[in-house]
Amino acid sequence: MNLTSFESIVTQYKTIFFDAFGVLKNHQGLLPGIGKTFELLERENIDFFVITNDSSKGPSELAASYQRQGLTQITEEKIVSSGMLAREYLTHKVKSGSVAYLGTPESAHYIEKVGLKTVSIKDLDLNNVQDINTLVFLDDEGFDWSNDLNKTVNLLRYNNITSIVCNTDMAYPVAKNEVAIAIGGIAKMVQEIVGKKFIRFGKPDAQMFIFAYEHALREGQHVQKNEILMVGDTLVTDILGGNKFGLDTALVLSGNTLPANAETRILSSGIIPTYVCESASI
Amino acid sequence: MNLTSFESIVTQYKTIFFDAFGVLKNHQGLLPGIGKTFELLERENIDFFVITNDSSKGPSELAASYQRQGLTQITEEKIVSSGMLAREYLTHKVKSGSVAYLGTPESAHYIEKVGLKTVSIKDLDLNNVQDINTLVFLDDEGFDWSNDLNKTVNLLRYNNITSIVCNTDMAYPVAKNEVAIAIGGIAKMVQEIVGKKFIRFGKPDAQMFIFAYEHALREGQHVQKNEILMVGDTLVTDILGGNKFGLDTALVLSGNTLPANAETRILSSGIIPTYVCESASI
Amino acid sequence: MNLTSFESIVTQYKTIFFDAFGVLKNHQGLLPGIGKTFELLERENIDFFVITNDSSKGPSELAASYQRQGLTQITEEKIVSSGMLAREYLTHKVKSGSVAYLGTPESAHYIEKVGLKTVSIKDLDLNNVQDINTLVFLDDEGFDWSNDLNKTVNLLRYNNITSIVCNTDMAYPVAKNEVAIAIGGIAKMVQEIVGKKFIRFGKPDAQMFIFAYEHALREGQHVQKNEILMVGDTLVTDILGGNKFGLDTALVLSGNTLPANAETRILSSGIIPTYVCESASI
Amino acid sequence: MNLTSFESIVTQYKTIFFDAFGVLKNHQGLLPGIGKTFELLERENIDFFVITNDSSKGPSELAASYQRQGLTQITEEKIVSSGMLAREYLTHKVKSGSVAYLGTPESAHYIEKVGLKTVSIKDLDLNNVQDINTLVFLDDEGFDWSNDLNKTVNLLRYNNITSIVCNTDMAYPVAKNEVAIAIGGIAKMVQEIVGKKFIRFGKPDAQMFIFAYEHALREGQHVQKNEILMVGDTLVTDILGGNKFGLDTALVLSGNTLPANAETRILSSGIIPTYVCESASI
Repeated sequence: MNLTSFESIVTQYKTIFFDAFGVLKNHQGLLPGIGKTFELLERENIDFFVITNDSSKGPSELAASYQRQGLTQITEEKIVSSGMLAREYLTHKVKSGSVAYLGTPESAHYIEKVGLKTVSIKDLDLNNVQDINTLVFLDDEGFDWSNDLNKTVNLLRYNNITSIVCNTDMAYPVAKNEVAIAIGGIAKMVQEIVGKKFIRFGKPDAQMFIFAYEHALREGQHVQKNEILMVGDTLVTDILGGNKFGLDTALVLSGNTLPANAETRILSSGIIPTYVCESASI
Repeated sequence: MNLTSFESIVTQYKTIFFDAFGVLKNHQGLLPGIGKTFELLERENIDFFVITNDSSKGPSELAASYQRQGLTQITEEKIVSSGMLAREYLTHKVKSGSVAYLGTPESAHYIEKVGLKTVSIKDLDLNNVQDINTLVFLDDEGFDWSNDLNKTVNLLRYNNITSIVCNTDMAYPVAKNEVAIAIGGIAKMVQEIVGKKFIRFGKPDAQMFIFAYEHALREGQHVQKNEILMVGDTLVTDILGGNKFGLDTALVLSGNTLPANAETRILSSGIIPTYVCESASI
Repeated sequence: MNLTSFESIVTQYKTIFFDAFGVLKNHQGLLPGIGKTFELLERENIDFFVITNDSSKGPSELAASYQRQGLTQITEEKIVSSGMLAREYLTHKVKSGSVAYLGTPESAHYIEKVGLKTVSIKDLDLNNVQDINTLVFLDDEGFDWSNDLNKTVNLLRYNNITSIVCNTDMAYPVAKNEVAIAIGGIAKMVQEIVGKKFIRFGKPDAQMFIFAYEHALREGQHVQKNEILMVGDTLVTDILGGNKFGLDTALVLSGNTLPANAETRILSSGIIPTYVCESASI
Repeated sequence: MNLTSFESIVTQYKTIFFDAFGVLKNHQGLLPGIGKTFELLERENIDFFVITNDSSKGPSELAASYQRQGLTQITEEKIVSSGMLAREYLTHKVKSGSVAYLGTPESAHYIEKVGLKTVSIKDLDLNNVQDINTLVFLDDEGFDWSNDLNKTVNLLRYNNITSIVCNTDMAYPVAKNEVAIAIGGIAKMVQEIVGKKFIRFGKPDAQMFIFAYEHALREGQHVQKNEILMVGDTLVTDILGGNKFGLDTALVLSGNTLPANAETRILSSGIIPTYVCESASI
């Protein structure tokens, strides 16, 4: 396995897209040395965005958590999350009625900010749903799985309702050697039971990369796709999605993909990163 | 749609296999007139078995519920359930250690009867699992979905454990226009998250029909496959499974498959029953 | 089923995205009356694009076929095809070496125009593939299925090669009551056999819609997503993709979705168009 | 990885089920030393069967090929193939009409022996199919893939026809580092395009093991499931199927599963063999 130094490649690009978990942080907090990488970006005037399949909080809360840990360069404007993409969808497509949701009040708060009426599945009366046209899967917390997932299945079986999933991940890490089932995994089970098509937002879907690219352009930057590097620890989301969107990609071995099996995984998946680096720390 | 009278065909067979829900009973209890069918079978000396994807109770409890409703012909020996198949597997394959389970104590009680030690996932200490070699998905009740499913995912991720699913159904009816997520649906979600292969027992799998066939032979009967009729309300489980095993099959329109779309469903699925009947009642 | 007149809605939008087959044409040629729709668009100064999962020809050849039939408004610039998206990918990501392909020389010709070296799988020597870094599935014609698909499987099994599929469809209509297997269906079989992840271009993928949207903006138009109407005959590609991208959508009943089952299909799929119209003809 | 000597375990069982490819033979012929294993079985009066997902030939032709190579113990009665299972299905279920097939005349010959009328898809007139009630996928050779697979898709789309797949494998080895697409892979593509349910025969399906078990009993032997050892080189077919049927299982490392990754594959799949042995040779 031919490893490239991250420092040697990062300065060749105008904009960097970073995955969050396994690249900037892990279950113990920020990765050692990642602060230096952001100092380098600042010094060299290289733009960046953090692209994350997270809909449990709004971008300001996500940014605040980096700030608290000392990564002051990651401000709200630097966050691109699947939750933001879902909110944009709802803004465009839901013109009246209420949006039912599975998640915490905090996760719903973010979509309420654009003026949408929301109702938690746990408070919904199944005999009175004519006002509901959309269901949003936001977070795996904030509801009773047994009671509220059965309610969700029955809501979808007999009503014309569009279902939105704000996180394509099946599970997420909560500690060393411990994961939790993500709302993406739960939504997949519900989808198979009701047999309908859900709209899913998150990497590796192209819409996530388009959304980040639009953010990169919004700041007045002129940046071409071949001037952007996508950095991630997971082949099937970060690298596949980046490749498909036409970006150069760097697989880092600080998270999901271990140094011992990176080569095997690349060959067996057919997902080929432009570079493989030990980590994004310098 | 060419309908056949059930009475006119049932007497042509030596043994009848009945699906339970949608054929013998529905959410309101026994189907009207089904008692007469069993009187006819008795009179004509036609053998029968009830084949059900149910692992929430043992066969004696399942039979008792028919008896209470007046269908006295359905005794314990007439029940063939996916739970019984799972118990047979455990008897053959688990020679030591403990079996972890998701379900009620009642569902576990049935597998304890053959001398197996069981432990509910909710009582399991993840730091002390070296005694566990098998996990059984028994029932959707008896545990806290959020807490115990996350625990299950972490148990399976890091240990060499065989997973057994005792019910292949994704959902089951609990009232008119109301279903509940079945343990088969939950197990499928866990399987996709951990990426392992589970052993699943239940229709349409051939093993369920073999098991029923063995029961038919056990009673000293000499019966050939072409002397058996499988009666069910669901194309993808009852009819597909019966056809594959080489049996004649009768689709009844008293449950899952409605008269209005039976013809379309047969054409679109390619699953072709030998007969289509209004119901198994006469 | 509440039908809306296409004429009454089309003038409410600044830009129309049309699916091709089942909307503008069918196996017999252009749909009767579709010419009038394009005259209306011209008169009202409404922009439009034809969005098609077709990689068998370049956009000029696709446009020429409409022109020959009298739809002179459909020029090369109005075509947005999955083949164009694939070519853009190749331009960004393939910087050296050769691109192997399955398809006709005509389909390959289109990607050669941007300076890429191509080699048909049928001419490829499996002992001499170090120059190949990408495989493109272009068309179901132009090669021997048995010989060249086996060759493709062996090429992909032992080499680090990125696979690109330029058409997500499984089949396409060739006559009334007759379809043919599309290169998208063939690619799916190869993908399952080799167990790798392929990059697939075509509706309902968001990248297809962003590509069309970029074309809409390129002409100097200022158009918002909510000023665009996507018109299609297929729920799972046209309508799902348009909805997800944030567009209003019109399902027409002149192709894949028949008037008799439109309502059932919408309810059973959970894919809800903004409007349902008899056809795009006026 | 704790390896067990095959010789030390084989004599503990009354009957051995062997997978063929990767266990008894590979692309170069019989595995070295496998003859001694069969001499031991003979000497110790241990019964055996060869269980193979092969429908390209009948059992006598399959046995003849072992005999030619000197393994004279493998006679026709010792072969249990997915093709035999399919023939049994056809015998039970097809009472009139013709069976269409994809495969060589040789593969069809085997099913013709029981009196069934067959017609190759390549000779079928799509305008005259009312006599056809079943389609059988027999072999990947003997027809023109492009022409005859398109014909198959159109046959199934508009007619009530049961489809039988006689080999569940997606590919099979033809030389060192070379595989060919199996009829099971082709059938899966057709199934997805037409959206129907096919009946599939072959390992790991339980029906294959019950069929072998019935053969074991037919010879007058009294053998219990726990007195049978299933020997295979593939976790997802041989070992999973054997485990599920309640047999002890031995994974051999002479074929599909390499010594270097056996441990990882067992942990990642959750398919746990009773033993792991270097090979079945002694």
